[in-house]
Amino acid sequence: MALYLIGLGLYDEKDISVKGLEAAKKCNKLFMEEYTSKLGVDKSKVESLIGKEIILLRRRDVEQSDLLINEASKGDVAFLVGGDPLTATTHIDILIQARKKGIKTKVIHASSIYTSVCESGLFIYKFGKSCSIPFPTENYNPSSFYDTIVENLKMGLHTIVFLDIHGEENRFMTVNEGLKRILEVAKERKDNQINEETLAVGFARMGSDDQVIKFGKIKYLINFDFGAPQHILVIPGKLHFVEEEALKLYQ
Amino acid sequence: MALYLIGLGLYDEKDISVKGLEAAKKCNKLFMEEYTSKLGVDKSKVESLIGKEIILLRRRDVEQSDLLINEASKGDVAFLVGGDPLTATTHIDILIQARKKGIKTKVIHASSIYTSVCESGLFIYKFGKSCSIPFPTENYNPSSFYDTIVENLKMGLHTIVFLDIHGEENRFMTVNEGLKRILEVAKERKDNQINEETLAVGFARMGSDDQVIKFGKIKYLINFDFGAPQHILVIPGKLHFVEEEALKLYQ
Repeated sequence: MALYLIGLGLYDEKDISVKGLEAAKKCNKLFMEEYTSKLGVDKSKVESLIGKEIILLRRRDVEQSDLLINEASKGDVAFLVGGDPLTATTHIDILIQARKKGIKTKVIHASSIYTSVCESGLFIYKFGKSCSIPFPTENYNPSSFYDTIVENLKMGLHTIVFLDIHGEENRFMTVNEGLKRILEVAKERKDNQINEETLAVGFARMGSDDQVIKFGKIKYLINFDFGAPQHILVIPGKLHFVEEEALKLYQ
Repeated sequence: MALYLIGLGLYDEKDISVKGLEAAKKCNKLFMEEYTSKLGVDKSKVESLIGKEIILLRRRDVEQSDLLINEASKGDVAFLVGGDPLTATTHIDILIQARKKGIKTKVIHASSIYTSVCESGLFIYKFGKSCSIPFPTENYNPSSFYDTIVENLKMGLHTIVFLDIHGEENRFMTVNEGLKRILEVAKERKDNQINEETLAVGFARMGSDDQVIKFGKIKYLINFDFGAPQHILVIPGKLHFVEEEALKLYQ
């Protein structure tokens, strides 16, 4: 009787760890979500690799019910999550609830977009606070991500900018949309700290064979076609010469 | 003819991804390093899983020679690195050199200590710049890590504090030594922003079955026995109530 939170890693069914795969194979029931992160392949690929059926859970099934906890009180249950599972902060609550009910939990970590962006050459210890650009709605169109980027730039730090994911509706913000929104906020605020000449790095489908890393000024990246989701954006701060040399490979 | 940088993940031979394992099995020559990160198991375990011999490289073999590049110009070569390979900034240079010589490179990502610390309940987007505490030597005993922690605390951000690793000499800084060094700097500077009452989270052997996550005041953690390496430390900033609830599980 245990709840396994198993990371699926970056992109396809083979980004799970050997440990995660072995644990999943031993579980009685397997669940998965696609709302905080979505693989580039279908659930059926994961089912084939594990050799078991997986039940897809919607956000409300996980957040508004004790389904996972109840199942884990009856036997070994796996909850499969893209990336490294607890970078999705909403899943921390599952751990808390399970442990409060005396259910054993085990997290099996996997590759994450957070560290994969270092493939661009950017040094991990120079990243400041990260931020997200949400899809705007009528009542919710925050611009606080802009402050985070500017604060980091002032300190010479890089910023990971998460682009909104509505995985269940297959809606993924592109690098282009993210950059447009950033320039929009700059214009609204009449601020020039981020502009068309600011450097950026766009990433698409990290972990896949056709992943894209593209470095350049915003005015160039804003029209660059990154292809299918998922995308992520980094606004680099002050560059070390090694970082600069590496980024030139992606120009 | 390609150079594969393959992440071994957090702790043992089974933290490699299925994709990384398959790639390693196909390579003609396999190399590994233990100076930027060291698994909790011996190289022989990795060799058994892959079914091939692995040559252990010392820092100077990698950084002061073209050994990896030369081998990769003759056939498919794997370079196995603990964690997610490019979080070790020194390995970025390998990518640059290989690509300059027209050698195809492929990075296969794996779990990393950077995101695994979220198992404590701390939200990933609230981490600021990270820092490292080096083993002091006669001519080198920097205290800049202290500034990083204090700056982050002022902004309410968490800090990952890397503890020095001399993997080749089996020297690993403990959480206790790291905390002692932090208090030492506070005392030297007559600064009270970090003191015995400051909260901290210590981690040991993340990814293993006997991993430890311990939360409490520095005065408590400084004497807590975390056991075998590797250790890592987080000084949390302002806590969200969900973070607080999660951390209480590790008190």
